[in-house]
Amino acid sequence: MAGSRAWILKSRPQGMPGLDNFELRDGGGQEVADGMIRVRNLWLSVDPYMRGRMNDVKSYVPAFEIGKPLEGGAVGKVVESRSPHFREGDTVFHMYGWREEAVGPAEKFNKVPPLGVPDQQWLGNLGLTGATAYFGLLRVAEAKEGDIVFVSAAAGAVGSAVVQIAKAKGMTVIGSAGGAEKCDWVRELGADETIDYKSGSLVRSLMKAAPKGIDVYFDNVGGEHLDAAFATARNNARFAICGMIDAYNGGDPQSFRYIMRVIAARIRMRGFIYTDFLPEMGDFYRDMGGCIASGQVKSRETVREGIEAAPQAFLDLFTGGNTGKMLVRL
Amino acid sequence: MAGSRAWILKSRPQGMPGLDNFELRDGGGQEVADGMIRVRNLWLSVDPYMRGRMNDVKSYVPAFEIGKPLEGGAVGKVVESRSPHFREGDTVFHMYGWREEAVGPAEKFNKVPPLGVPDQQWLGNLGLTGATAYFGLLRVAEAKEGDIVFVSAAAGAVGSAVVQIAKAKGMTVIGSAGGAEKCDWVRELGADETIDYKSGSLVRSLMKAAPKGIDVYFDNVGGEHLDAAFATARNNARFAICGMIDAYNGGDPQSFRYIMRVIAARIRMRGFIYTDFLPEMGDFYRDMGGCIASGQVKSRETVREGIEAAPQAFLDLFTGGNTGKMLVRL
Repeated sequence: MAGSRAWILKSRPQGMPGLDNFELRDGGGQEVADGMIRVRNLWLSVDPYMRGRMNDVKSYVPAFEIGKPLEGGAVGKVVESRSPHFREGDTVFHMYGWREEAVGPAEKFNKVPPLGVPDQQWLGNLGLTGATAYFGLLRVAEAKEGDIVFVSAAAGAVGSAVVQIAKAKGMTVIGSAGGAEKCDWVRELGADETIDYKSGSLVRSLMKAAPKGIDVYFDNVGGEHLDAAFATARNNARFAICGMIDAYNGGDPQSFRYIMRVIAARIRMRGFIYTDFLPEMGDFYRDMGGCIASGQVKSRETVREGIEAAPQAFLDLFTGGNTGKMLVRL
Repeated sequence: MAGSRAWILKSRPQGMPGLDNFELRDGGGQEVADGMIRVRNLWLSVDPYMRGRMNDVKSYVPAFEIGKPLEGGAVGKVVESRSPHFREGDTVFHMYGWREEAVGPAEKFNKVPPLGVPDQQWLGNLGLTGATAYFGLLRVAEAKEGDIVFVSAAAGAVGSAVVQIAKAKGMTVIGSAGGAEKCDWVRELGADETIDYKSGSLVRSLMKAAPKGIDVYFDNVGGEHLDAAFATARNNARFAICGMIDAYNGGDPQSFRYIMRVIAARIRMRGFIYTDFLPEMGDFYRDMGGCIASGQVKSRETVREGIEAAPQAFLDLFTGGNTGKMLVRL
């Protein structure tokens, strides 16, 4: 199947998106001009942050345009090259996702380094999600050996990487996830304690799981999770704010009962995007590549098949439909 | 009047305290043992943070005990000394406030440095409030020349010091205060823009006052003020969280519509207490003393007369009853 279909943003969602916000169109016939390449995509990434780009607001990345193909991480093989930097058959990762075929200037594509890992890992532990976990935990939160780390959405793509990096670095880890099955998996990854956020008070569960309090909170969720972290923070705790999936689709303000503890506990809270650390990607590939090679960091994917599956795969991120990284295989 | 009365915490307030939570008792007859001194207090400080100590919770300072005298900043004169470090007539500042006479070990008292400023300034710009403003702005928020600084409760003791320090250091300052009169005074202190938080939407007012956004937020208030700061923060903005007077008496959670901007704008938010910077007090006295001597930092007090006035002076802090530092003169 050598189609060239692409998912278009048909309309901007209000609140939770639906399938009717997306339209699959034929994007074929794009010419490969001098200095460009054509790539057949093998793997597409869907990530919660994409929800933000569906709104018509200025943010750290430009909003998706109505009537244009969506963008996102993808891995593929070069099928046509008019650039000296790529040859047919090269495996590349890039941001022309949500489509079967990507055509663009050579500098928008990256050849995968020869680490011998499965292709899709360049969208996961060695890609955006792994880098987000790595820099958020080690650089933003400055987590170090011996710290007690709480991570929300610990069965998600970023969270599961945080759990494993933290364990590899000698930290105590408490992970929250939705449901017993996901919690089991988070424990398999090495977490010392897990919290099923679907059962009971999060603050109480976290106080029980971390009776001495937490030194670090890696936030993927916001809302009640963040409030529980405020409640249990030890002195000089550091919070890396990576995502607030609780708020991506809702217009309601978030409520905090314990935010005042920021003062007494001298909490440091900092938002970040992994691209803030692009100059340090060399460290990341070396360190994370080592952890993957040694088996300290494992990967798990929830895979959907075929380009048609992409919007539903994306929507399922907001209802906990994934364990580990959510991917679409073409 | 050489009384030795002291205000006792009679009961713990629920929500907003009332006069019935306080009781004035005779605390006389305390002996001055070897190594101790007796001080007749001249000025007492009342500060919003004291509300936290009235709750029975572990915090950065121990809770006040029921039936014991309250504590707080005070300035007085030594009337009896059994310590080689103090002589009768020395002016001292210390934490045995809320009472007419203080008796305690010499090491709990500090002789005022010979800067030739009025006594009560050791409770204000050269005391807890000035040091809080100074370290919060310059160390915690790392504010520097050219920054656009937003400060809430800018007509308060800490806020008015922040406004003046920021102007002395070449920053642009937007201050919020309640009512036209206080806003006028904040402008007199040098603020470039003021916002009357009692009139209209705070977010909209702040966007108008700082069309390019803010680099620094000095938070004394929390709640809607903090949310407006989230809404208008520029990239890499720093928030020094000093107080959240909006939340001191209320049990209701605080609501934030814009907290998710922490991520996109890479906001760094950090809680602090000025005592975190005690080793740097030398810098503070030198720098702040210079600003006071040169007239760059001025002082204004709201003064209540007599020990009987202390509880009401304290309560009035929560309804905006003070402009500048609230003090009780004995």
